[in-house]
Amino acid sequence: MIYITRRERFTAAHRLFIAEYSDEKNLEVFGKCSNPNWHGHNYQMFVTVKGEINPDTGFLINLIDLKNLIRRKIIAKVDHKNLNIEVDFLTDKFTSTEVIAIAIWEELEEEIKKMGALLHCVKISETENNSVEYYGK
Amino acid sequence: MIYITRRERFTAAHRLFIAEYSDEKNLEVFGKCSNPNWHGHNYQMFVTVKGEINPDTGFLINLIDLKNLIRRKIIAKVDHKNLNIEVDFLTDKFTSTEVIAIAIWEELEEEIKKMGALLHCVKISETENNSVEYYGK
Amino acid sequence: MIYITRRERFTAAHRLFIAEYSDEKNLEVFGKCSNPNWHGHNYQMFVTVKGEINPDTGFLINLIDLKNLIRRKIIAKVDHKNLNIEVDFLTDKFTSTEVIAIAIWEELEEEIKKMGALLHCVKISETENNSVEYYGK
Amino acid sequence: MIYITRRERFTAAHRLFIAEYSDEKNLEVFGKCSNPNWHGHNYQMFVTVKGEINPDTGFLINLIDLKNLIRRKIIAKVDHKNLNIEVDFLTDKFTSTEVIAIAIWEELEEEIKKMGALLHCVKISETENNSVEYYGK
Amino acid sequence: MIYITRRERFTAAHRLFIAEYSDEKNLEVFGKCSNPNWHGHNYQMFVTVKGEINPDTGFLINLIDLKNLIRRKIIAKVDHKNLNIEVDFLTDKFTSTEVIAIAIWEELEEEIKKMGALLHCVKISETENNSVEYYGK
Amino acid sequence: MIYITRRERFTAAHRLFIAEYSDEKNLEVFGKCSNPNWHGHNYQMFVTVKGEINPDTGFLINLIDLKNLIRRKIIAKVDHKNLNIEVDFLTDKFTSTEVIAIAIWEELEEEIKKMGALLHCVKISETENNSVEYYGK
Repeated sequence: MIYITRRERFTAAHRLFIAEYSDEKNLEVFGKCSNPNWHGHNYQMFVTVKGEINPDTGFLINLIDLKNLIRRKIIAKVDHKNLNIEVDFLTDKFTSTEVIAIAIWEELEEEIKKMGALLHCVKISETENNSVEYYGK
Repeated sequence: MIYITRRERFTAAHRLFIAEYSDEKNLEVFGKCSNPNWHGHNYQMFVTVKGEINPDTGFLINLIDLKNLIRRKIIAKVDHKNLNIEVDFLTDKFTSTEVIAIAIWEELEEEIKKMGALLHCVKISETENNSVEYYGK
Repeated sequence: MIYITRRERFTAAHRLFIAEYSDEKNLEVFGKCSNPNWHGHNYQMFVTVKGEINPDTGFLINLIDLKNLIRRKIIAKVDHKNLNIEVDFLTDKFTSTEVIAIAIWEELEEEIKKMGALLHCVKISETENNSVEYYGK
Repeated sequence: MIYITRRERFTAAHRLFIAEYSDEKNLEVFGKCSNPNWHGHNYQMFVTVKGEINPDTGFLINLIDLKNLIRRKIIAKVDHKNLNIEVDFLTDKFTSTEVIAIAIWEELEEEIKKMGALLHCVKISETENNSVEYYGK
Repeated sequence: MIYITRRERFTAAHRLFIAEYSDEKNLEVFGKCSNPNWHGHNYQMFVTVKGEINPDTGFLINLIDLKNLIRRKIIAKVDHKNLNIEVDFLTDKFTSTEVIAIAIWEELEEEIKKMGALLHCVKISETENNSVEYYGK
Repeated sequence: MIYITRRERFTAAHRLFIAEYSDEKNLEVFGKCSNPNWHGHNYQMFVTVKGEINPDTGFLINLIDLKNLIRRKIIAKVDHKNLNIEVDFLTDKFTSTEVIAIAIWEELEEEIKKMGALLHCVKISETENNSVEYYGK
């Protein structure tokens, strides 16, 4: 079993809030992350896939194909976007890094299986100090 | 003459656009950076000051004072904010990295002079690939 | 299950030595790390917690609370300190990165449980080339 | 159980290709990585070992010994070399990052056992975007 | 006057040698960098341009245009290539980082002038420890 | 004129204080950096030299020679040392990053001249947020 990780980056605006809460309550719970006028990040996404090496190619997976998949399914939808209101797979979701990581996992899992590998981990870093990892259910 | 650089970070939403342009024209000129729903960045700011070492302290400037100045005058106003609509020193300005660097220079220049040093450079990096430096007029 | 990592930094002096050894023996076993006049590092600490996402907040844990906990329990005690002689939870301990990681785990484990999450890993990097991870017993 | 990671670096030339394929077929499958005139990388290698802390030294393993082992067994053979034609443990192998990681594992596993620890992971990063991890069979 | 820096990356093989020297002499002067079987690097290139901000756009230069120029004139020619034998603007040149930086400057200087800015600096980093800057004659 | 930068690293203990001050006064002026029990850093040193390229070698300076010079004159004296009490060229000096940069400049300037280049800049970074540059008188 070998593990391969591809890093991709995107920049996006977002806001942490719960619609049922008042602005004051949101500010109390989520701090400055709840700013109604949005803030944003340079997100880094690390997608790790695993599997056996293909004896014909010496690859587990063609990294060019993996890069193209991530760009088509994820980057094209989130880069230079507002995560709360413009991303189909985040509709009506809370945009914490945790929720983003799980939603991206769900977008990629089946597609990677079709490529002959298994999705192992989606890691999202929001700042140089904060990151989240999801390994599936 | 010695040069000291302090790095501070902030995350913010912004959008590149000219009010007189249509959305189409803005999209043509500024690309995805013109998204009307905003996007955002983890900005890094490098403030470089210069001067002679104080023979009493061995410091050019007390770095704690410099850090506090930058946080009070800049970070408190831009961190987790929307640069286009919430920052007093960017009001009615275009929020390119170039313009942000110059505006921050103007906020800091006099204050640093009062601390006994000269502002030498404001460098802003918007992504790991793009940055801007301003050295004053 | 989701994993969240918070990075915090501290700078400290330390020395590797065994009290029963002579300076020569310590030098032989621990090399320049045994310098009796100390040396020091910019340590990076990565604290990873795990658990289920709280359906009310969309968070596993409030990152602000986690940051404050780490700063109160660890950073306040080790930053700008001598690890061998000033840190209560390292008293009489050998200050290898291994031992530091385990000692920090023991300081944090119960407190993180009270916050509704489980401590998963304490990673300490001593230099850009050396790091240690501890996942508990 | 504690985990210790040592980073070492090497620069090398290589090429991805299968001898039975034509240059056109190699180009089709491996893209610009198949350039017959070679290309190269600054590889980073992260070797993680695991085990119990030695109560006499407070170390799992003497990091100086681990560094020297990695340099003698790996770095001396691959640094400033052509991975396809000059490295004994890669002879007749395909030089994907996957294959390199496995081959390095096999060079190190027994030697680390002799030092009283177990090899846990060999991670190789080829660029800032691509990396591979191998944990043994 | 404002300064804007764009980072681009390329991986390439090369070798340091003087054709008139024997392999032994090359090895003596250039060390392992003279390996006749090549080695390689992940190069980083930082192109800095300077000028006045365009009052119509708030930009000194459109970064998308600058990126495209660098990719068309430089990256397309050097990425995944052998610098000694495949790059038109390095033909018959010695491929030290110094020479590469100057050659790239000469490829870009006029083109950037046409875009309404001045080339200020070409910086090439070969490893995390070594880099070169060229500011023109 | 071309500029070449070599990065070297060292770890050291130090303390900011003025002997004539009481511990309280030192604490007031220098904060936690005045801890009488020391603290420490992973310092990074960037030495930039400048000059004309040697037409015989294509180098400004042999980087191996520059590395060896820096290691012999500086690293051997400061690495894993206490900067306040063990370094000959810092004797009786205040160990702010400013003073360290100037002292290292003075150690290197003449030696680099003998190698046929000019010392341009000594940059010392103390943490990821603080650094100092010195360009000579």
